[in-house]
Amino acid sequence: MVNTSRAAQLKQHRQHFPYLEGKGYFNYGGQGPMPQPAIAAINQAQEYFQQAGPFSSAVNSWIGQEGNLTRAEIASELGAPVESIALTEDVSVGCNIALWGIDWQAGDHVLLTDCEHQGIIAVTQELQRRFQIEVSVCPIMATLNQGDPVAVIAQHLRPNTRLVVLSHILWNTGQVLPLSEIVAACREHSVNQPIRILVDAAQSVGMLPLNLMESGVDFYAFTGHKWWCGAAGLGGLYVKPDARDSLHPTFIGWRSITIDAHNQPTGWQPDSRRYEIATSAIPLYAGLRAAIAFHHTLGTTEERYGMICDRSAYLWQQLTQLPHVTCLRSTPPQSGLVSFQLASGEHVRLVQFLERKNFFLRVLLDPNCVRACVHYFTTETEMDALVGAIAAF
Amino acid sequence: MVNTSRAAQLKQHRQHFPYLEGKGYFNYGGQGPMPQPAIAAINQAQEYFQQAGPFSSAVNSWIGQEGNLTRAEIASELGAPVESIALTEDVSVGCNIALWGIDWQAGDHVLLTDCEHQGIIAVTQELQRRFQIEVSVCPIMATLNQGDPVAVIAQHLRPNTRLVVLSHILWNTGQVLPLSEIVAACREHSVNQPIRILVDAAQSVGMLPLNLMESGVDFYAFTGHKWWCGAAGLGGLYVKPDARDSLHPTFIGWRSITIDAHNQPTGWQPDSRRYEIATSAIPLYAGLRAAIAFHHTLGTTEERYGMICDRSAYLWQQLTQLPHVTCLRSTPPQSGLVSFQLASGEHVRLVQFLERKNFFLRVLLDPNCVRACVHYFTTETEMDALVGAIAAF
Repeated sequence: MVNTSRAAQLKQHRQHFPYLEGKGYFNYGGQGPMPQPAIAAINQAQEYFQQAGPFSSAVNSWIGQEGNLTRAEIASELGAPVESIALTEDVSVGCNIALWGIDWQAGDHVLLTDCEHQGIIAVTQELQRRFQIEVSVCPIMATLNQGDPVAVIAQHLRPNTRLVVLSHILWNTGQVLPLSEIVAACREHSVNQPIRILVDAAQSVGMLPLNLMESGVDFYAFTGHKWWCGAAGLGGLYVKPDARDSLHPTFIGWRSITIDAHNQPTGWQPDSRRYEIATSAIPLYAGLRAAIAFHHTLGTTEERYGMICDRSAYLWQQLTQLPHVTCLRSTPPQSGLVSFQLASGEHVRLVQFLERKNFFLRVLLDPNCVRACVHYFTTETEMDALVGAIAAF
Repeated sequence: MVNTSRAAQLKQHRQHFPYLEGKGYFNYGGQGPMPQPAIAAINQAQEYFQQAGPFSSAVNSWIGQEGNLTRAEIASELGAPVESIALTEDVSVGCNIALWGIDWQAGDHVLLTDCEHQGIIAVTQELQRRFQIEVSVCPIMATLNQGDPVAVIAQHLRPNTRLVVLSHILWNTGQVLPLSEIVAACREHSVNQPIRILVDAAQSVGMLPLNLMESGVDFYAFTGHKWWCGAAGLGGLYVKPDARDSLHPTFIGWRSITIDAHNQPTGWQPDSRRYEIATSAIPLYAGLRAAIAFHHTLGTTEERYGMICDRSAYLWQQLTQLPHVTCLRSTPPQSGLVSFQLASGEHVRLVQFLERKNFFLRVLLDPNCVRACVHYFTTETEMDALVGAIAAF
């Protein structure tokens, strides 16, 4: 799969993930383990924060700078201008900012795919209750192996559709949705006002090369703790610059606003900081930047995505050969997510069995399956051992 | 101020705050430095989190348990049932949950005091814009030394008032508002529906003994990183049990809801977890519990509040004797906040001057003043040195 010097480099690289030792880790889609440089950066930032403050003029400047550096680093990874990025606690907060910031009118329509996360479904149900909007769901899951997700979405748009909510990579089946084509279809169907597109990027950021400005999406909500391997508690939201003025801040705090000499609010921050709220766990910022920088030491995002696909193809191939195991994909996956089913349906028992043997996977409910995630530093040995353990179940 | 054995005990206690060494620290109202047991608890939790996962069945159970333990500990401190507590990223998020969860009707009235934080003012302005509610402000600041804040609030209630927003301890002047009397006044003025009371508890939690159920307030938003000396990024919201059904969750994620076997939302969590959103920096939970436990090793909350008031009286007394310095309070403070003004008005320059000498204070804009905060472990020596430095300015 890789040549010898590349393999040696990768072996060394992987040793910087102290918490992978002795494990078969396949839950990157849940949370990625932090590499040593990220752990060190968090500890160092925490130490500085407490030592120079914790509340002081010096620390207040440093907090502002940490935010700027982190937004800039993220923007660069996402192919987006820095002023489009807001830092959030997690991907759900990013989705909520987009969902609550639209000036909903009774009768507006929101279209979801049938592969969205339960938390996002619940937000749209609450919006429906509060603003008498219409919410409907289109069947994307069935396009994993045949059919066209763009056509399915286009068929379900209505003259009153104001927002489409989809995931860039479906968290259950691992399918990658073609954003630019979906954006084009939505543009074509926009009647009175633009159909906005909110992307749940929980599984795509840190996995795929991205150019959000080119993609044309309006809102892209992500987290640092999955494929980027940062700490839990830090994510973000991209808001397309020309969508900003129509997306109102909802949860608001001192970070959202500008003030006058008498402490009175005078307006929003000029950029996406208007969607940030208040006090956060700031030391995590340096951790995420260090994690991102560490990934780059092994190759470009394109190269690492290629490595992920190589590995998921390998795992898919091995699983396909097991009796009683059926992969959801009939061809090699497009992402690091490899979901499969047992003929027995005993998915919970399998995951518990594997965890006792130090293999970490998870069950998904819809479709009912087991999900194995591979990252660019997942090894063949690790995958072989997993397949052996599944075969032994 | 204290007897010898008490002084020795306190000296030893203070040594567990590694980041106080070499400082005159007076910014507890901004952020408290973490005691060693809190730092250790966070590191240990982080280590466990990564080692046993970071994403695994074991860690998912642990996260649930950490949440339960933390809500229970907070509930016990606040005199509240555990099911009334939601964990949040910060105090602003807690205020936003309460402010956005009410089913606002055009013409509803919100009353704020004139001492609320700019972020909270901005939320009410956005609510005004979105729901055509009325927002007005009542002059509480002027009651610091004379007059009755309860009467001022009562005078500004209207038949259409649905919510009063106030701080338990005013962050600028340090005044403590009498919650129970304000609740009684609001009850008396409730015409068609109850007037709800949202309390910004940024300065009161960790400082005062509390019994929220007895107080009668509806919503009480707080943070762990100020007077409790936990890490930044963890706070909470108390929602009075009988106010829960009428306070709708707004920002929603997987923590807010229950689901069925097909991953579809079936309803809210039965308790205040419905206001929690999604992924957070979970290791901070153990840190906050350790910080709270550490404070208790020195005395009850009542005893520590007494010590805070002893110290603020001492500092107030010393400052009052300085020429060109005027304390906002004409009598000793009711809290650990001691705000003062210079005849020259050079507050920014003073704070910068002091920070260069390792004294940490902050400027406030309205009223324009300098704020010095003292905690129960602030020493006379530390206060004497501060007063000397201010005199030398």
